[in-house]
Amino acid sequence: MGNSFGRIFRISTFGESHGLGLGVVIDGCPAGVAIDEDFIREEMQRRKPGQSKITTQRKEEDDFKILSGVFEGKSTGTPIGMVIMNTDQKSKDYSHISDKFRPSHADYTYFEKYGIRDYRGGGRSSARETAARVAAGAIAKMLLKHFEISIHAYVSQVGDLKLEKNYRDLDLTLTESNIVRCPDPQMAEEMISFIDGVRKDRDTVGGIVSCVAQGVPPGIGEPVFDRLHAELGKAMLSINAVKGFEYGSGFEGVKMRGSDHNDTFYRDGDKVRTKTNHSGGIQGGISNGEDIYFNVAFKPVATIMQDQESVNESGDAVLVSGKGRHDPCVVPRAVPIVEAMCALVLADYLLISRTNKL
Amino acid sequence: MGNSFGRIFRISTFGESHGLGLGVVIDGCPAGVAIDEDFIREEMQRRKPGQSKITTQRKEEDDFKILSGVFEGKSTGTPIGMVIMNTDQKSKDYSHISDKFRPSHADYTYFEKYGIRDYRGGGRSSARETAARVAAGAIAKMLLKHFEISIHAYVSQVGDLKLEKNYRDLDLTLTESNIVRCPDPQMAEEMISFIDGVRKDRDTVGGIVSCVAQGVPPGIGEPVFDRLHAELGKAMLSINAVKGFEYGSGFEGVKMRGSDHNDTFYRDGDKVRTKTNHSGGIQGGISNGEDIYFNVAFKPVATIMQDQESVNESGDAVLVSGKGRHDPCVVPRAVPIVEAMCALVLADYLLISRTNKL
Amino acid sequence: MGNSFGRIFRISTFGESHGLGLGVVIDGCPAGVAIDEDFIREEMQRRKPGQSKITTQRKEEDDFKILSGVFEGKSTGTPIGMVIMNTDQKSKDYSHISDKFRPSHADYTYFEKYGIRDYRGGGRSSARETAARVAAGAIAKMLLKHFEISIHAYVSQVGDLKLEKNYRDLDLTLTESNIVRCPDPQMAEEMISFIDGVRKDRDTVGGIVSCVAQGVPPGIGEPVFDRLHAELGKAMLSINAVKGFEYGSGFEGVKMRGSDHNDTFYRDGDKVRTKTNHSGGIQGGISNGEDIYFNVAFKPVATIMQDQESVNESGDAVLVSGKGRHDPCVVPRAVPIVEAMCALVLADYLLISRTNKL
Amino acid sequence: MGNSFGRIFRISTFGESHGLGLGVVIDGCPAGVAIDEDFIREEMQRRKPGQSKITTQRKEEDDFKILSGVFEGKSTGTPIGMVIMNTDQKSKDYSHISDKFRPSHADYTYFEKYGIRDYRGGGRSSARETAARVAAGAIAKMLLKHFEISIHAYVSQVGDLKLEKNYRDLDLTLTESNIVRCPDPQMAEEMISFIDGVRKDRDTVGGIVSCVAQGVPPGIGEPVFDRLHAELGKAMLSINAVKGFEYGSGFEGVKMRGSDHNDTFYRDGDKVRTKTNHSGGIQGGISNGEDIYFNVAFKPVATIMQDQESVNESGDAVLVSGKGRHDPCVVPRAVPIVEAMCALVLADYLLISRTNKL
Repeated sequence: MGNSFGRIFRISTFGESHGLGLGVVIDGCPAGVAIDEDFIREEMQRRKPGQSKITTQRKEEDDFKILSGVFEGKSTGTPIGMVIMNTDQKSKDYSHISDKFRPSHADYTYFEKYGIRDYRGGGRSSARETAARVAAGAIAKMLLKHFEISIHAYVSQVGDLKLEKNYRDLDLTLTESNIVRCPDPQMAEEMISFIDGVRKDRDTVGGIVSCVAQGVPPGIGEPVFDRLHAELGKAMLSINAVKGFEYGSGFEGVKMRGSDHNDTFYRDGDKVRTKTNHSGGIQGGISNGEDIYFNVAFKPVATIMQDQESVNESGDAVLVSGKGRHDPCVVPRAVPIVEAMCALVLADYLLISRTNKL
Repeated sequence: MGNSFGRIFRISTFGESHGLGLGVVIDGCPAGVAIDEDFIREEMQRRKPGQSKITTQRKEEDDFKILSGVFEGKSTGTPIGMVIMNTDQKSKDYSHISDKFRPSHADYTYFEKYGIRDYRGGGRSSARETAARVAAGAIAKMLLKHFEISIHAYVSQVGDLKLEKNYRDLDLTLTESNIVRCPDPQMAEEMISFIDGVRKDRDTVGGIVSCVAQGVPPGIGEPVFDRLHAELGKAMLSINAVKGFEYGSGFEGVKMRGSDHNDTFYRDGDKVRTKTNHSGGIQGGISNGEDIYFNVAFKPVATIMQDQESVNESGDAVLVSGKGRHDPCVVPRAVPIVEAMCALVLADYLLISRTNKL
Repeated sequence: MGNSFGRIFRISTFGESHGLGLGVVIDGCPAGVAIDEDFIREEMQRRKPGQSKITTQRKEEDDFKILSGVFEGKSTGTPIGMVIMNTDQKSKDYSHISDKFRPSHADYTYFEKYGIRDYRGGGRSSARETAARVAAGAIAKMLLKHFEISIHAYVSQVGDLKLEKNYRDLDLTLTESNIVRCPDPQMAEEMISFIDGVRKDRDTVGGIVSCVAQGVPPGIGEPVFDRLHAELGKAMLSINAVKGFEYGSGFEGVKMRGSDHNDTFYRDGDKVRTKTNHSGGIQGGISNGEDIYFNVAFKPVATIMQDQESVNESGDAVLVSGKGRHDPCVVPRAVPIVEAMCALVLADYLLISRTNKL
Repeated sequence: MGNSFGRIFRISTFGESHGLGLGVVIDGCPAGVAIDEDFIREEMQRRKPGQSKITTQRKEEDDFKILSGVFEGKSTGTPIGMVIMNTDQKSKDYSHISDKFRPSHADYTYFEKYGIRDYRGGGRSSARETAARVAAGAIAKMLLKHFEISIHAYVSQVGDLKLEKNYRDLDLTLTESNIVRCPDPQMAEEMISFIDGVRKDRDTVGGIVSCVAQGVPPGIGEPVFDRLHAELGKAMLSINAVKGFEYGSGFEGVKMRGSDHNDTFYRDGDKVRTKTNHSGGIQGGISNGEDIYFNVAFKPVATIMQDQESVNESGDAVLVSGKGRHDPCVVPRAVPIVEAMCALVLADYLLISRTNKL
């Protein structure tokens, strides 16, 4: 349990970091979506390791194959099965950590849960699993494109370096112009330089990814438990290393008065709009037509290039040595993952909303 | 869709603010749980309106009946159906808002979604629905009691008044000793006085509820999409007026270095423990045996005792007048709701975890 | 688990035979369905005990209340909660069977499963639960009415008395004209007389309910596991006392050659039709626009007015005496239940089919 | 939707007859199940085409790869992803049927549902999809083996040739000793000869597969909608070409009297047993410890080697010519599929039952 997401547009992922391969099955993609394999490839490039000096230098090709569900360039309505083979899965020696619990990783908890674990590179708990999410998210994005819904995420904080500007005051087209994926070029340089310093310290640091979805029509979302922002929150919190989620006014909103926080309605042509958008485009769990925006907090990556105290499966005190090539900060590569999860939620809710009225 | 929560221990709620009644069906409660109706009643008293000068003065009796699933004081394994009748649902005149959209309420979005809405007191989008959650949560708590798992929530912030102390430095048994439900008596007084001032301004203010779950054994949680904290996050974000969720180090954690943030393992008798707990008791989405703790951010209540500009269903500009008896700050009454949702998630995941191993 | 049915149009039932009450929550009924409470009442009258000399003489009023989800005569899109209170639940003495396992009832299996059981009248395993299904099914029928889909069930066999005519050769409007619900008046009389004889023998007998759904457009159903007939089959097999299900050519079809069995397509105006309908209106699990028809086999009622050997909870040999007022044959009262379950399946699949295409 | 099955032990299949490949993801297999790849291969051999003169002569190698979820010979609790590549998917010319609707196939209904279809070999509606089920079913069987639960299916009828003996009077170990998979050698010969004649007539014929599950402990199954036999029925009806399902006394049971049909309980050592087993091992939807047995009716294969009248996508009258290599009777190859689906249901329910009691 736990490896599927969505109700109508539903994905199921599988695969470990160092198994033969990983993949995803998308069930519920409507027939007729134009599928552009190059676009999927581009999305996966944004996530893949080894893309810049501030990400891990590990090389993974992430080449995918669509096995089913697409015919003559279009989705057929049947499950889209995609696999990404692991090309070098047998090359590495994991004996030095095979019975050790790496601090703040999932080694101990998987062992407690299953009584057995695939210790190679974290097995299923590895962030490699998100490659399958990005592939599925690309399909969701292509679906949303038919409805003119777009999603943009970007890095808004790294350590203490915080972009104080709101997304409305930024040129989001600049996000992909730098390796840290911050749309403010000045701040981007600072962040890059900071992350590089952290890397040289053989350490890691956290950050925040902000995301905005535009073009979502009013009426998307479900009441009560499946509020749109609740599902978005779950989607984001399900990404490796995420520790927090807030939308609209978020945690800052707790300090406000209702008279300032409330978003006054007005008429704009044939549309109902709000003057402010503290609601983050969602009221009562349902979209109101305004931009949906939210922040996602990522902790510092747990793998550091330093020796750390720990215990092994027998409970003996051991030393875990930092080895390999890892990200000093996860947020640059997390940007496409946040977008993918957002796209998956919106695709699912868009389809569900077709069943609301007679 | 959207009115059920959980997979094994699964609840479905129904009912509008001003319909005949509301209720909940719990499917999947194991047989043999000792059901104490007085305890359910106490939990509901903690949520009910009219309990103090800083909550709404509206009176709702919230008297419930268990219709099924309990026999001779114990759960039977069959669905537990509970109803809470609305005693005065016909008494009020809603004609003054029947076609108006109240700012930052769900009036507009429900109308867009369904093309029809029950305008009486917000209908289904009213926080009255949470009465059913608290009733179900009480059952979940009684289940968790058999496993010595306990849950304590409390108010840690109101407006700018923030309790800087960690839950470990507080005497949580004091939470219920004051009407704002803050376990620090000094801060509680300040908060009460502050909320009372906001109320006199005919305004509202937000706040934060913190929660800690103790006694959760290691191994509870599911990988990937249904990570324990992702489901907790969804559960909290599904509560009316919630804008954010963080667990463990949360948003503050983004500023930390990995070398500080990582929770080092050590052996404590026959247990594996961590020296720090930035992980908030959850690693890779699965509990590690440490305390689970998180914060939930609530916006200021949307209903204010002031006139506000808006539009009606025809799109005409209208004035919405503040009427009735509403909460100046929602967090004191949100405390039992946060606990209830936490209990529901833990009960569900505890049962699921029984299927993990051969 | 097990007390909900459907994915989009989803019902959850609760309640025991002799608890305070039973009920159902319908989540996912689209907004705008005209709700006629009299129609629901009529449907429940068709199921209720005590309606004729060939059904149980027990009196249950089955008066329901809609607690939510309906406003000003229409569904609002929010959950429809309905309760049916048990008026005389405390009147009876069950001590004579409280620790005995009645043969071919669920007493033993519930006890094995839950370690506890509500022995009063079978508790949750009682067919009284189907009252909630019929109430929910009436809502589903009202939804289907908007799409001109109609459902007719009738008794086609009782013991050896088998109606050899196909539904096309019967006047289905006659079904409700007699107490056995067989549309052939001659056969109806024979069946009534036969059942009456069985009753006088203090025994019971089985039978078959046939059902036809007309007006279902082509394209309703899901591939692979959720084939429309698979879900119909599950729905029917979930009714108390059902032992078999077949659709279209059914078990007789196994004897046919493909060249006879295949339904040849032809054009009829702007429609594609089939010359024969051995497919029962479903091909590859998806409706083809022809009539959907199927048969449901019911075993003889397990409660007989005779002494039977059995064991009790301690494993001792005991005698179970037949007491109370029970149905000599269940099929006349099963007719509305079969229709209700069929309506629930069709309503659910109709809504799901809206998500198939771009 | 529709491509997943099960709640805890849950499979999702994907793949078309002539796409790149097909596969299955199993989520919820407990950790620790010994995985024998040879056994999976054997099971797939039983299903694969070209195995004898009375099945299709098409050659498909059905070679699978386990991509994830198995480590050092055991399941790890994470999703088991399996793929079966289609080796010759591009070799064939389908232009002769690309816009024609084959009678009693799913061509027309898929086209109506999705507005688009993969016409190569039936696409998703092809029985090739069952290869993935058999692979998943083999994993389920290996899980059940740990609990000493075994499943045996066999052919009990082909056309009018019906094996009158009950499974108790047959030597089920003989099932695999002949190509029709009937455990009665005499009847097997008759069936083989009969099918061969049908094949020479360029026609097809239906049949019945019977199945028995032994060793299922009492208490497995869920009340009300998810009765064990209802889920078994759905599982069987979801197999291509199935038209009916009955368990225990089945359709014959309708003719019986309750006094004959009821299964009397008695004590056998420390077990509660029943003297007869008309209940088919299931009472109230829950296993009672006796053998579970049922019958599955298959229609004659729709593809016949004869010309048939039909229409094309434009509605024009066309002739569909029988081409290729197809099964004259599907039941011999359906035996392992019936077993696989039965194993999947039992594995799922076995795990669910762990959550029933405190």
